[in-house]
Amino acid sequence: MDKAQQDALKKAAGIEGAKLVKDGMVVGLGTGSTVRFLVDELGRRTQEEALRFTGVTTSRRTAEQAEGYGIRIVDIDDVNDVDLTIDGADEVDKNFNGIKGGGAALLWEKIVNEASHRNVWIVDESKVVDTIGAFPLPVEVIPFGAKHVLKRLEDKGYKPVLRLDAEGRPVRTDENNLIIDLHMGRIDQPKDLAEDLINMVGVVETGLFLGRVNTVIVGDPNGPRILTKSEE
Amino acid sequence: MDKAQQDALKKAAGIEGAKLVKDGMVVGLGTGSTVRFLVDELGRRTQEEALRFTGVTTSRRTAEQAEGYGIRIVDIDDVNDVDLTIDGADEVDKNFNGIKGGGAALLWEKIVNEASHRNVWIVDESKVVDTIGAFPLPVEVIPFGAKHVLKRLEDKGYKPVLRLDAEGRPVRTDENNLIIDLHMGRIDQPKDLAEDLINMVGVVETGLFLGRVNTVIVGDPNGPRILTKSEE
Repeated sequence: MDKAQQDALKKAAGIEGAKLVKDGMVVGLGTGSTVRFLVDELGRRTQEEALRFTGVTTSRRTAEQAEGYGIRIVDIDDVNDVDLTIDGADEVDKNFNGIKGGGAALLWEKIVNEASHRNVWIVDESKVVDTIGAFPLPVEVIPFGAKHVLKRLEDKGYKPVLRLDAEGRPVRTDENNLIIDLHMGRIDQPKDLAEDLINMVGVVETGLFLGRVNTVIVGDPNGPRILTKSEE
Repeated sequence: MDKAQQDALKKAAGIEGAKLVKDGMVVGLGTGSTVRFLVDELGRRTQEEALRFTGVTTSRRTAEQAEGYGIRIVDIDDVNDVDLTIDGADEVDKNFNGIKGGGAALLWEKIVNEASHRNVWIVDESKVVDTIGAFPLPVEVIPFGAKHVLKRLEDKGYKPVLRLDAEGRPVRTDENNLIIDLHMGRIDQPKDLAEDLINMVGVVETGLFLGRVNTVIVGDPNGPRILTKSEE
């Protein structure tokens, strides 16, 4: 699958996801290349169909894109409830456990996810996997003492790599923290791993999103597939 | 006990703690009014007795005080190991579980504590309690979405209050986060509470320090008492 084909699938998933947004809703808008297509479609409907909703963003760049379309964007702390959040994911397995944070926005994404009554992910089919972990797991850490966290992650065998930008400087998140990517290859026990990581001093949040979505819209060459988690 | 008496006990604990610092050590220096006396004594020994050690601080204000005495201060990420960390505590029980963070420095304090081979607390006797929790438990939270964290803490019955400064503005930590104090009165199950809090999205760290020190030096009217935890 080349990039143009993949973009077509992302776009189809984004357009399908946009259908869930109705007038008057408060909607969390995620971050990433698939969400870009979602926001484009919501922008189109705002301008052509007079759609009116309030957006809560998970990154500065999504906020800028949405406001460019005239979509009303407010801070997460300016709303009491978020009706629906639509976000991308870097990997998702059949139990709807996923990895996010390739775009370094995992912290705000998880905070909005947590505040949202319903969470939907939009992905192209390449993101759907049997076992997560081929995509390096992002972990957001406090800069102060980060070298020691890196060392501890190494000692645990988690294969950590500090994320650098194109100029070779450490990437900073919207909260001015660092990202360490864990190149584990596969994660068989995501819940145990999440528990271990979040209890490490200096770790703010992990890119493991477990049991946090109930709908995944998959861009597929045969048209978008909507996967819904059965109630447990 | 009036403030002058309490200060005398803090000072006695600080001077006693300073005796643990030897030439050539890398020493974590905590934060707070008792640590101020510790740093004064270490400064005196640096100037009068040519004591030479390297300090790692847990807050900008301790760094400034120490550097004023000519003590060499480095960043936690500039050392591989910390030999000893001496810090204060807001409360400590007989199992050496404690609450810290009254000075809003709990995150850096916990990071240095974690990196340190040995941890010692210096306190005046008023800090020693049967059950922790009368002192409000500080929790450091990400500003983004903090209102929702406050709401969830309320729903759990943890009696949270956002910490404000003298001008009524939210206090910011050295990492630019917020502090929410939990007015629980008493904390009977500190481990369960720590676990619950650290797993809340938006919570960076808590002021619960459990099993993290093995020596407590208590400033007492009869002279400093040194409490050492028996090995388990």
